Amino acid sequence: MKIIVSQINPTIGDIRSNTEKVIKCISHAKKQDVDLILFPELTLCGYPPEDLVLHESFIDAMHDHLEQVVKASKNIVVIVGLVRRNVSHGEKPLLNSACIIQDQKILGFYDKWLLPTYDVFDERRYFEPGKALFTFNLHGKKVGITICEDIWQHAGYVDRTKYPRDPIIELSKENIDLMLNLSASPYRFTKSDLRVEVCQKAAKTLQASVILCCQVGANTQIIFDGYSVFVDEKGNLRSLGKGFEEDQMLVDLQNPFPVLKKKEETLEDLYRALVLGVRDYFHKFGFTKACLGLSGGIDSALVCCIAKEALGSKNVLAISMPSKYTTGQSKIDAEKLAKNLGVLFKEDYIDSLFTCFLENLNPLFEGKKEDVTEENLQARIRGIILMALSNKHGYITLSCSNKSEAALGYTTLYGDSCGGLGVIGDVLKTDVYRLCRWINQEKEIIPHSILEKDPSAELRVNQKDSDTLPDYAILDKILMEYVENYLSMDEIIQKYSLSKEMVWDIIRKIHRAEYKRRQGPPILRISKKAFGVGRRYPIVQNWL
Amino acid sequence: MKIIVSQINPTIGDIRSNTEKVIKCISHAKKQDVDLILFPELTLCGYPPEDLVLHESFIDAMHDHLEQVVKASKNIVVIVGLVRRNVSHGEKPLLNSACIIQDQKILGFYDKWLLPTYDVFDERRYFEPGKALFTFNLHGKKVGITICEDIWQHAGYVDRTKYPRDPIIELSKENIDLMLNLSASPYRFTKSDLRVEVCQKAAKTLQASVILCCQVGANTQIIFDGYSVFVDEKGNLRSLGKGFEEDQMLVDLQNPFPVLKKKEETLEDLYRALVLGVRDYFHKFGFTKACLGLSGGIDSALVCCIAKEALGSKNVLAISMPSKYTTGQSKIDAEKLAKNLGVLFKEDYIDSLFTCFLENLNPLFEGKKEDVTEENLQARIRGIILMALSNKHGYITLSCSNKSEAALGYTTLYGDSCGGLGVIGDVLKTDVYRLCRWINQEKEIIPHSILEKDPSAELRVNQKDSDTLPDYAILDKILMEYVENYLSMDEIIQKYSLSKEMVWDIIRKIHRAEYKRRQGPPILRISKKAFGVGRRYPIVQNWL
Repeated sequence: MKIIVSQINPTIGDIRSNTEKVIKCISHAKKQDVDLILFPELTLCGYPPEDLVLHESFIDAMHDHLEQVVKASKNIVVIVGLVRRNVSHGEKPLLNSACIIQDQKILGFYDKWLLPTYDVFDERRYFEPGKALFTFNLHGKKVGITICEDIWQHAGYVDRTKYPRDPIIELSKENIDLMLNLSASPYRFTKSDLRVEVCQKAAKTLQASVILCCQVGANTQIIFDGYSVFVDEKGNLRSLGKGFEEDQMLVDLQNPFPVLKKKEETLEDLYRALVLGVRDYFHKFGFTKACLGLSGGIDSALVCCIAKEALGSKNVLAISMPSKYTTGQSKIDAEKLAKNLGVLFKEDYIDSLFTCFLENLNPLFEGKKEDVTEENLQARIRGIILMALSNKHGYITLSCSNKSEAALGYTTLYGDSCGGLGVIGDVLKTDVYRLCRWINQEKEIIPHSILEKDPSAELRVNQKDSDTLPDYAILDKILMEYVENYLSMDEIIQKYSLSKEMVWDIIRKIHRAEYKRRQGPPILRISKKAFGVGRRYPIVQNWL
Repeated sequence: MKIIVSQINPTIGDIRSNTEKVIKCISHAKKQDVDLILFPELTLCGYPPEDLVLHESFIDAMHDHLEQVVKASKNIVVIVGLVRRNVSHGEKPLLNSACIIQDQKILGFYDKWLLPTYDVFDERRYFEPGKALFTFNLHGKKVGITICEDIWQHAGYVDRTKYPRDPIIELSKENIDLMLNLSASPYRFTKSDLRVEVCQKAAKTLQASVILCCQVGANTQIIFDGYSVFVDEKGNLRSLGKGFEEDQMLVDLQNPFPVLKKKEETLEDLYRALVLGVRDYFHKFGFTKACLGLSGGIDSALVCCIAKEALGSKNVLAISMPSKYTTGQSKIDAEKLAKNLGVLFKEDYIDSLFTCFLENLNPLFEGKKEDVTEENLQARIRGIILMALSNKHGYITLSCSNKSEAALGYTTLYGDSCGGLGVIGDVLKTDVYRLCRWINQEKEIIPHSILEKDPSAELRVNQKDSDTLPDYAILDKILMEYVENYLSMDEIIQKYSLSKEMVWDIIRKIHRAEYKRRQGPPILRISKKAFGVGRRYPIVQNWL
């Protein structure tokens, strides 16, 4: 039996284009004489469609377009994902389903059993869990269907959830030969290994081959890396789809490829994830050009590299906006980096604007001393310039705040945090350095001195991040343990032998900065807990 | 039997202070010789605690503080709400519970059955539904417990959800005499009537008295109006708690008050809701002072009235920031309103800053014509001034964008949309007018000409909202039907005999402005569908 694992990149809500893509892939598969083509979870509308599914006309459109897929399925089995109405009893009116079509006839639907409702996932908001298995026979093989999360609990990888039923255990009583899984499984630094492991566990329990078809592409915050999986009935990895791009992976069950090793998790993958995140945000939104402020520091350097890779050097404008506090070296570094990348570069001194504001605000400041206000003012002037360029020329502004800064609120609201997309808002400062060193591994793209200098916002004389923040190596550990792993303050203090005062101060700042993050741009998610839609804290609260 | 319905205003996460308040209320109740004191849903941590409940130490703290409540319950029955761990089987590790304590002994727990997971509610993210009823006897009466949503389905008022079980039906087989409900039921313009109706339906089915104890106060976006309810076993309304403030409502089951009429829904309630929303946002966050830009238009006029009412006139700074496009009348109106309200008033002309920016940006604009960029620039200059005041003097900036503008993106990101709180972001423009007329009903507080002039952003010569937007009376109908009622484009066109072109254009703009709203401040929710946490749409999508 031959199967095409159609790892496609749908656009959320664009049911018509997604359906056209599906039909094109079916037609291509037929030419290769395959028996079955498998698509990712919620193929027709993309994942996650969020509240769009609450519109009746949205569901109607999906049903209508399914008809077209049915028509296109002559002499082939097609399995596509879609949202459909729940016509039987249950709490929610919709189902997250797979439609199994053979030779222009719908064989039936399988409805997802395990509905993740944690982190960025809200499936219980919309969907009723499925209750029935679905299997069918094809060329003497018995095939079972599951959707994404359905196979994760069996391997023990679900977050604070213990579903009452395990579809893998129940399917194992059906003696199937092949299990097909429609997935939309977000990228996470170090996760792609997990996905293979999850398939292997299922294959061993089922004593059946397992094929996982992944959505690829980025939808606002969430990046899907692709890497569809085929493991044989012994749990050997036999094929892996391409990473970060569409792929029509051919699987020949009778003649599989030799056993593959699991892939190493690399910085390259992290980089490609961020590049894909930027590219899809722009292209799916109908934009081509980005602008960003290039300070001569490491964060904007990384974002500039990513933007160039995602959009092409001629579509990136890097603008240096020096003030009297900007060092000569920073100016040189910014220009050199832009030159190395071949992106457009401009310089715009902000001192006269800063002076203008100080004069204007002087009566309102009522003689109060200089403080953080003047620092924020500079950051906001830069924000206005970037947004003016965005308005005038149709750029989307990229924000260069990293996760460590965002965590502590070490950013200026409407200043350096402004923009359409927070490119590295989920990348810890220490990982920003690692990525930059990786970019430079073959030749110096990012000027050496950017990597070597002490981090500074350059908003007052001789300012250094270390004036206000602990060492990033320590800070990032605390952030990871508190934000991503939910360790308590006491556990962190003990694990790293840190002072209570320091850890408490950091945790307090994390909660206190919630109001800033709430108004930041969407952040590309690459960790298991990114700031944004998957982390929901009250702004006004008084824990601690 | 005498009961105190303890309608309190907890602070999210402040378990210690909330517990102290509970103990104080118990002590006060004892002095009145009552048999039972009932608190609202999630008394100890406030509602909604969101992801704070994912911290083990948060749950531990709640258990610890429950001990103190138990100790304080000598000679009285106390019913408090809290989060507790789910130690039996189930998908989620936590329960939304009521603890029933009698004379320093825990009689047991009731766990909420119906977990709303729609709009602003995410209870399935955290909680496992309860499965058992809880009843107990007190002075020969049989008492049943429910929590909030548990009684709403029975009256038919749940959103796109059909829970498989109905606690009211199941309780009706238990022949109870009294049903107590712990609630955290958000305010909604026109909803308080519903709450009484829901209690009446339950009372009739149960043939029992029903008491609903409501949380009061505002927690970031969500406003709880109070108005706790007591209806007798025939469904007659007998007592209603105070609106928008704490209340210790005494209910004497044997000697109830005479039958009350349901209260009328009033603009006064809407106003008080917004005032409470501002007050609690500030005070629970540790702030006292607000600043806002007073343009001479109707939106900032309304916000200024609300801020004055919430914080006191000496804590409100209204700043007029005229430009060459500001009419003389607007300047006069702004100053007159500030004077009428007794708030601090300052004036700051922005023309020189605007000129400064135009000069600075001239080379970057590359000779392109004047467009919306220059309009946004003015709005952002005003935003910077407000944020500088906020930084320098410790004000929180209030945003004055209304719902109609926010819907269409007729605001400047980081400009007029900036601030810590969107006070009227859920109030349609037509309701802004209604509220202002209500404020003026006894004497002219808001200058007449503010109510009479054509709405204008005053960002270019002779600009009027009607240059770009349809009549607000029509626009607001479309917004209500599309955003709040989920009518389709075709249904709206038909219902109001409107052109397809106009309705399509509005709907398209609503979706297109998602990116702006995502970066706006939290909005006080007063309708059944506010922009913000309860409305979740992808920024990048291509439906339509």
